[in-house]
Amino acid sequence: MRVDIGNALDAVATPGITTDALDRLDAEVAEAHDTIAAGMSNAAFGYASLNLPETTSATGIQRAVADVDADAVLTVGIGGSALGAKTVSAALGESEHYLLDNVDPEHAARLLDGLNLDRTAVNVVSRSGTTAETLANFLVVRDAYESAGVDWTERTVVTTGDAGPLADLASEEGLPRLAVPEGVPGRFAALSAVGLVPAAILGHDIEAVLAGARSARESLSGSLHDCPAYAYGAVAAALERRGAHTNAFMPYAEALEPFAEWFAQLWAESLGKDGQGQTPARALGATDQHSQLQLYRAGRHDKLVTLVRPRKRADRSIPQTDVEGLAYLGDSTLADLLDAEFEATEASLAAAGQPNVRVEVDRVDERGIGDLLFSFEAACVLAGELMGVETFTQPAVEWGKSAARGLLGGTDTEESETVREKREVIIQ
Amino acid sequence: MRVDIGNALDAVATPGITTDALDRLDAEVAEAHDTIAAGMSNAAFGYASLNLPETTSATGIQRAVADVDADAVLTVGIGGSALGAKTVSAALGESEHYLLDNVDPEHAARLLDGLNLDRTAVNVVSRSGTTAETLANFLVVRDAYESAGVDWTERTVVTTGDAGPLADLASEEGLPRLAVPEGVPGRFAALSAVGLVPAAILGHDIEAVLAGARSARESLSGSLHDCPAYAYGAVAAALERRGAHTNAFMPYAEALEPFAEWFAQLWAESLGKDGQGQTPARALGATDQHSQLQLYRAGRHDKLVTLVRPRKRADRSIPQTDVEGLAYLGDSTLADLLDAEFEATEASLAAAGQPNVRVEVDRVDERGIGDLLFSFEAACVLAGELMGVETFTQPAVEWGKSAARGLLGGTDTEESETVREKREVIIQ
Repeated sequence: MRVDIGNALDAVATPGITTDALDRLDAEVAEAHDTIAAGMSNAAFGYASLNLPETTSATGIQRAVADVDADAVLTVGIGGSALGAKTVSAALGESEHYLLDNVDPEHAARLLDGLNLDRTAVNVVSRSGTTAETLANFLVVRDAYESAGVDWTERTVVTTGDAGPLADLASEEGLPRLAVPEGVPGRFAALSAVGLVPAAILGHDIEAVLAGARSARESLSGSLHDCPAYAYGAVAAALERRGAHTNAFMPYAEALEPFAEWFAQLWAESLGKDGQGQTPARALGATDQHSQLQLYRAGRHDKLVTLVRPRKRADRSIPQTDVEGLAYLGDSTLADLLDAEFEATEASLAAAGQPNVRVEVDRVDERGIGDLLFSFEAACVLAGELMGVETFTQPAVEWGKSAARGLLGGTDTEESETVREKREVIIQ
Repeated sequence: MRVDIGNALDAVATPGITTDALDRLDAEVAEAHDTIAAGMSNAAFGYASLNLPETTSATGIQRAVADVDADAVLTVGIGGSALGAKTVSAALGESEHYLLDNVDPEHAARLLDGLNLDRTAVNVVSRSGTTAETLANFLVVRDAYESAGVDWTERTVVTTGDAGPLADLASEEGLPRLAVPEGVPGRFAALSAVGLVPAAILGHDIEAVLAGARSARESLSGSLHDCPAYAYGAVAAALERRGAHTNAFMPYAEALEPFAEWFAQLWAESLGKDGQGQTPARALGATDQHSQLQLYRAGRHDKLVTLVRPRKRADRSIPQTDVEGLAYLGDSTLADLLDAEFEATEASLAAAGQPNVRVEVDRVDERGIGDLLFSFEAACVLAGELMGVETFTQPAVEWGKSAARGLLGGTDTEESETVREKREVIIQ
């Protein structure tokens, strides 16, 4: 990964970072890196995430799924148990990876009706084995297979913890079971079985994904000037302190759209704590230039825009045309056009004094996505150290889970009682 | 549409609106409504958008596409020329509407390779007929049809202005041509041919979409207490003044995911002006509860969370299970679970004092999406009046277009020269 922070400096942008502030930031990075490196070498909770490129066994995953014969994969999971896998398969151009990562009955019905279940593997992922949405969907999926007369036990792979209903089920039915990695929160688990099983079933080179991640891991160092991941994390945290409370994350590649979603989870759930944290706003270039750019240029100076692109793409020429005013397109390719739009957007933000950072990888491929996943995880861990938050926990999501359980289970909890006391002011 | 603003009041949330402030706001709404109603009756620029439910002819669109025989539609457009159509067809559960709304060569290749061109209509949309991305893609699409030996002229529908390259092309080739409505910016044009052609080709009841919009139009009135659309727009604008600089827009229905994208364009491009405007952050319930909710509860109090759901859905029972701890699911349906999660999220935000608004429609269907599209357009126009911005223009996107043209066309513009002078600070 390669990061250009030129448009985040105060010579260009407001808020922006002065040269002096960058020196002070680098000293903070050195200290934070010591903490991170110590956490990694002890495999401490959370920091163990950054060891996955070394500890995940690609061959172990491949062996576990070797007997699954399928042309498509249906992942049943939610949040960190789905987004990593979605990100990896999209980056590899895989169109036969489907997801049930919501509990929308109309969507579930449409999706299941459209699949050839006979040739579709099921990849069910839940650390605890008790996630309500995932288990409900899995029960629905099993039912659909049974109704279609297809044996789900022959094509189901389970990724879960050592104990719990899913682990029990895998034992009873003799299903291939992969472990969720120890000490790794779900949103940091893409570079393990949690993120790699569908790609493995569909025959992609998951070892190359891990190799891309390892190359990023090797670049971790005590200075932001030598480590693109830390440069990004440090600059994002420094801009957040200075008022950039939104991180508009805008890849210029359709295959990276799920990566933006994955980033949004990583960033919000890790850093959104104690009245801090940037709100991730997902965008997609060039499409959203025709949508969000008006605001990004002319709205408040409270946003960091993160522009992401590959340096190389499989390209396609634009056919010649004699239409007046469009002849200039005929000497170009679609990638030329997209790159021109990328650079124009970047410059138009800079000209308006709006801070932005450019992130590039060589290609959107196995190595590229491994590099991106690892680098942004490291950036997030670094930003968490600089912000002084508990990066690896998510205490604020528990309230809602207890409320939902109370509403559904028939036995009220303290939280579900609050739901029933809602203050209503209805206009209809 | 039905709106509940109870959780946006200061008794619940910070920032929140006091009862006195709500009275003052209602007086502002009355004044703004006079301006809007006058603009509508004069069909003034922009305000004419709110007349579309009356001025759009469903039968005119159906007649224009009557000879197009296809099982799928490929829309070629970008921004306002694509998002409306995507939103309508997704809400109707249509899976055979594809889009080229970006200029990503790898995505274009994958998409075109996967389509049965012989049975796929092309819907090309550009107001000016000169949009670089759309014309480049259209040239690529024509080329793909010709390479496959399929006559594109027999299955192409053009929606464009009265003059320009696309209008000329339609005349030369005898293609069905539909007009873009007068005085209506692209992002406000979903309830016209711009948004309805794909649904019409695929046999959906577009008259019912317009009927849903008409019902919302009839509810426009001089008080926010009588008009759900204005209630939403007024509360959003009032919270924006009080520090809710982000609008996290979270439908609880997969079929409304493109609606959130459409909203993001509408809100950002219309209101993101003069250092004002909420940044739209798209989310999807229940999925993003496992992702963004940590930030929404425990981060800054700078967000309005907009929760959207249908009151009825085609449902699916969760099969019974004897797994310990999950038995409570077996008496429920997927919709029960989703609704419990919706209410739990809403209450969990309220318990943390984070402002949120509930928006409901009867169903996600033809009438429902017509209602939603119109209501949020009216909400946006109202918010623009209260904020004192030029809702219907988008001056800040022009800079980048000129820069991109200079980079591609070989002749530098002032803007493209700036691109070449970029300040680089690269870490790799």
